[in-house]
Amino acid sequence: MKKVVVIGGGTGNFTVLRGLKKYDLDISAIVSMADDGGSTGILRDDLGVLPPGDVRQCLVALSNSSRLMRSLMNYRFENGDLGGHSFGNLFLSALEKVTGSFEKAVEEMSRILFIKGKVIPVTTHQVRLKMILKNRQVLDGEKEIYLSQEIDQGYSSIYLEPYPKANPHAISEIKNADLIILGPGGLHTSIIPNLLVGGISDAIKKSHAKKVFIVNLMNRVGQTSGFKVSHYLDELKRYMGVDCIDYILVNDQKPHESLIEMYAEEGDLVDNDLQGDERVISASLLGKLVEPAKTDLIKRNLIRHDSIKLAQEIVKIVDHL
Amino acid sequence: MKKVVVIGGGTGNFTVLRGLKKYDLDISAIVSMADDGGSTGILRDDLGVLPPGDVRQCLVALSNSSRLMRSLMNYRFENGDLGGHSFGNLFLSALEKVTGSFEKAVEEMSRILFIKGKVIPVTTHQVRLKMILKNRQVLDGEKEIYLSQEIDQGYSSIYLEPYPKANPHAISEIKNADLIILGPGGLHTSIIPNLLVGGISDAIKKSHAKKVFIVNLMNRVGQTSGFKVSHYLDELKRYMGVDCIDYILVNDQKPHESLIEMYAEEGDLVDNDLQGDERVISASLLGKLVEPAKTDLIKRNLIRHDSIKLAQEIVKIVDHL
Repeated sequence: MKKVVVIGGGTGNFTVLRGLKKYDLDISAIVSMADDGGSTGILRDDLGVLPPGDVRQCLVALSNSSRLMRSLMNYRFENGDLGGHSFGNLFLSALEKVTGSFEKAVEEMSRILFIKGKVIPVTTHQVRLKMILKNRQVLDGEKEIYLSQEIDQGYSSIYLEPYPKANPHAISEIKNADLIILGPGGLHTSIIPNLLVGGISDAIKKSHAKKVFIVNLMNRVGQTSGFKVSHYLDELKRYMGVDCIDYILVNDQKPHESLIEMYAEEGDLVDNDLQGDERVISASLLGKLVEPAKTDLIKRNLIRHDSIKLAQEIVKIVDHL
Repeated sequence: MKKVVVIGGGTGNFTVLRGLKKYDLDISAIVSMADDGGSTGILRDDLGVLPPGDVRQCLVALSNSSRLMRSLMNYRFENGDLGGHSFGNLFLSALEKVTGSFEKAVEEMSRILFIKGKVIPVTTHQVRLKMILKNRQVLDGEKEIYLSQEIDQGYSSIYLEPYPKANPHAISEIKNADLIILGPGGLHTSIIPNLLVGGISDAIKKSHAKKVFIVNLMNRVGQTSGFKVSHYLDELKRYMGVDCIDYILVNDQKPHESLIEMYAEEGDLVDNDLQGDERVISASLLGKLVEPAKTDLIKRNLIRHDSIKLAQEIVKIVDHL
């Protein structure tokens, strides 16, 4: 059975994992620990726990439990002091408190949710994502970076504070992988935060696994406006040292004009400027229109990848390994 | 297999159920829905859910899941907006929201916790416990009644508002029971609230089951000060219409003098004034000294029943049925 390691965080990861779950693969999700917004941010501040949100999404994506259990884990309380908290986040945080370890909490929840594969925090240290803009302004925390409208004006550095060592389990998964998948997802908020953890970029480079980068469908205003595929790869190279990507998975299906218009304030389509590049796999990857959940704290994309189409393209790559 | 129905709420129920779980019995716990203090009260107010606290305790008592899962369900968050909330309460409330029904939530959690037997809310209506004192003061809510220091001066009435119909499942369990157990527990806050639900007292009276009353170890100052065993039975009769108790289980083991002294401000030992009564079963029922949990919102008893000793006496009764 081929070993596929998905590195990221947030909704992008969720989509890839949910699709891959149906195939006969050994799946590991390595998850960014930089989230500090919404329910996760409050739990970090109030309880001193590690950020549960992205891990929860991966667990639910890989879960083979009942639809009810999966809905429960994504359920957000609507009122009172609990308002906005995802139940699954509370579950992970309570487990962390009771077991005394975030990793044990994730293992326990993996059992409860009958997950396929493994979910592994990229580090088990408390970290905070920071970015210094060209104008020397410091953006403090993933949420602040996510909400910034100035990143596409350029930034001088992005880093985790304090500089964390990688979770050894993450390193060994990467080492033993047959395929490593990066993206889709927030470039600076979900993908790069993994590469900033001590040992991760190095492990990816050294791994014999083929590396796939799944390019986002849309740029985000203020973050990646006007980015083409090559810009995304340049950003990865900036943190990996070399361009070690073997396959670049790009959507070639145009969303409905009305959706693009509706989306104009949020961002523009990512243009594929690497048409001649042999590594590029173009395919129709668009999902059906979904309504964002009412209680989502941060506005989510209306134009999304289709988890089944993504998985089919990945499996084709795996079959050729 | 004999059917044993335990009626109550709170810690008293927990002790009885935890002991009975080990025996080959068909156990049902019928649980008061009057709780409105602490974590439960906040969840009722903020989310409009039915009170989870007493049901959670019964579920944990009957659970055959791992020690970790049971600890998790009783875990209380310590800081921030979540401070004081029991995770198990949040679990039940989130399940109620996702399933749209408190009973379904209880069923689902019963499965997750591998419980032995059934836990059944006495009613599925939102109710509030009220008491009118002799001085015409109205005590509004179970918590206010629990904290009152004037109930032993006499009260004119206690009732649930609005007057609720019983959960039909509770009625059928009572009807089909071989043994019905009332107590131990807060007389006005855990036991009587069940008898105030439309149809429950009547079902108990009509049931062919033998009825056991487990007398509290201690009276509570301001609530039942100076009560003897006969006073407890008189109170039950007041709401049942007749004295239909077949067995009265009374502790005859004296707690250590130092504990009684330490306890003096909380209450006095219940005196057995029914020595000649053939229904009385006297036995050594004291549990070992346990420290109350730091995070308990309401001070709990230091002098407690022993769940194993209680269960042994109950099983002796069952064996003679």
